[in-house]
Amino acid sequence: MVLAVDIGGTNFSLALVSDGGKFQKKLTRSTDRSGGAIWMISNILQESRRLLKTTDATACGISFGGPVDFESQRIINSTHVAGWDDVELPKIVSDELSIPAVVDNDANAGALGEHLFGAGKGSKNLVYYNIGTGIGGGIIIDGVIYRGSDGNAGELGHVPILPDGPLCDCGNRGCLEALCSGTAIGKRAQEAVARQPRRGKVIGKIGAGEITAKSVFDAARKGDRLALELVDEVCVYLGMGVATSMNAFAPDAIVIGGSVSKAGPVLLRPLREQADRFLMPVHRPHLKVIPAQLGNRSGLMGAAALAMGHEA
Amino acid sequence: MVLAVDIGGTNFSLALVSDGGKFQKKLTRSTDRSGGAIWMISNILQESRRLLKTTDATACGISFGGPVDFESQRIINSTHVAGWDDVELPKIVSDELSIPAVVDNDANAGALGEHLFGAGKGSKNLVYYNIGTGIGGGIIIDGVIYRGSDGNAGELGHVPILPDGPLCDCGNRGCLEALCSGTAIGKRAQEAVARQPRRGKVIGKIGAGEITAKSVFDAARKGDRLALELVDEVCVYLGMGVATSMNAFAPDAIVIGGSVSKAGPVLLRPLREQADRFLMPVHRPHLKVIPAQLGNRSGLMGAAALAMGHEA
Repeated sequence: MVLAVDIGGTNFSLALVSDGGKFQKKLTRSTDRSGGAIWMISNILQESRRLLKTTDATACGISFGGPVDFESQRIINSTHVAGWDDVELPKIVSDELSIPAVVDNDANAGALGEHLFGAGKGSKNLVYYNIGTGIGGGIIIDGVIYRGSDGNAGELGHVPILPDGPLCDCGNRGCLEALCSGTAIGKRAQEAVARQPRRGKVIGKIGAGEITAKSVFDAARKGDRLALELVDEVCVYLGMGVATSMNAFAPDAIVIGGSVSKAGPVLLRPLREQADRFLMPVHRPHLKVIPAQLGNRSGLMGAAALAMGHEA
Repeated sequence: MVLAVDIGGTNFSLALVSDGGKFQKKLTRSTDRSGGAIWMISNILQESRRLLKTTDATACGISFGGPVDFESQRIINSTHVAGWDDVELPKIVSDELSIPAVVDNDANAGALGEHLFGAGKGSKNLVYYNIGTGIGGGIIIDGVIYRGSDGNAGELGHVPILPDGPLCDCGNRGCLEALCSGTAIGKRAQEAVARQPRRGKVIGKIGAGEITAKSVFDAARKGDRLALELVDEVCVYLGMGVATSMNAFAPDAIVIGGSVSKAGPVLLRPLREQADRFLMPVHRPHLKVIPAQLGNRSGLMGAAALAMGHEA
């Protein structure tokens, strides 16, 4: 049994997970962003002690929603929550709970989780997109997370798509993330509705400030023309990214996870079409773009896998 | 000692190479395209027998300028020379010369050659661009060629850059290869000169039909404004491709080989600038874009490495 922890900007979760990937206990709580890192760490330790009161765990794995230096096992920072700069989180957890601890970013953890327990079960090579607030990427090569020489391989959300496109959180312009993250889809939909309020018969009725990526996919599912156009545009860009990943990595599967992937077929069908269009023909028979299976638990399952030593 | 063979559309070369990568004997001959595969195979066997008369080789490695199915050890085809469809070349060579033989495409062989004996010596992970008639890519991960699940990973020339750009040999539009291969650079320069004959004071004096990628870089070196603009545009696209490779693979080095790389600093300086611009900031301190060191011999050295069992 291992202890798995998933730290996000909105929620955090803990679970006890068995070797086969079965959950024993799981709890999810809201993140108090104003409390910063200190609030989060003390809450995680408190909830962990509660879980470990009745069950022993051999190790703790942590999935963190922000950049992590895996080699030195430190959180680099968090763009959503204050106080996370250069925090040696696994050391703190390990000292407090007296079990070894390991941390990785949520995209790598999600890739590992889906590879071992989800949509990528049985695959050798896998590419994972975590499309939510941002776009994270995780690469599995020969069954292990591929980190590259500087430790930051797999940044698939920062593939340049439009050289003069919208500003990205990374400081560049026109990255895939700046065009197709949940945040970006919502923002572009708000702008489109403001420009053409009558075109989106469904989406046009939502207050412009209330429109999210979810509203866009919901409206598209109802045949809203403006929403369908937005989804098509998103799928051109995402298709370019997915084709690039297939051309470069030629994985068994490309798994789409994160909150945006919950849109389902209304996103995946046109995404597959566009990825196929941009793909080098030799790869076409092998392209497999599939939704994540673990939903919100990809990162948590990956954290469990890390604790089990899958990245030893 | 191994026998190395490099088969291209313009020339073919053979060499005897020692374990340390030293050449014993080397010869290069022009390819008779009209002779097709049969002419090539009989010439290679003839020259090989001549080389092997005085020196023994333990194995033969072949670099082929076209798609190869590495797993089944067959040439898939050649876009330049007839008669290469589904040819089991290593079996023929092995039967005739009584030594084991192995084949791979020239981009993979070039990547391996540069990794072991050239610009990438000592690297663990490496990305290699072969920019010539087309754009080939080769990926080294943990010291071996990365082939992906379908055997065709590393197709870096077919990253989509401009969704509605010029037609590519692969059938898609706007691939990196369709914009930045030597062929593409020459063609775009011809079109630019036809449109603005007075702007390129150096390049404008060459007959439009005679302009090649080399003319563009030569003219840019002399300060020709039109040529400099063309080089800048090429470097924006190539920079997007290189940044994508760095974001995805985070290799120790990105090695630029092939005939276009002979342009030197007039290409490499703006290419580094553009790659840096499009790169995710976390990777910037680690970006290393360097020219190939083995020149025309990258593929031949890679073929030697294959024969030495570096891909066993």
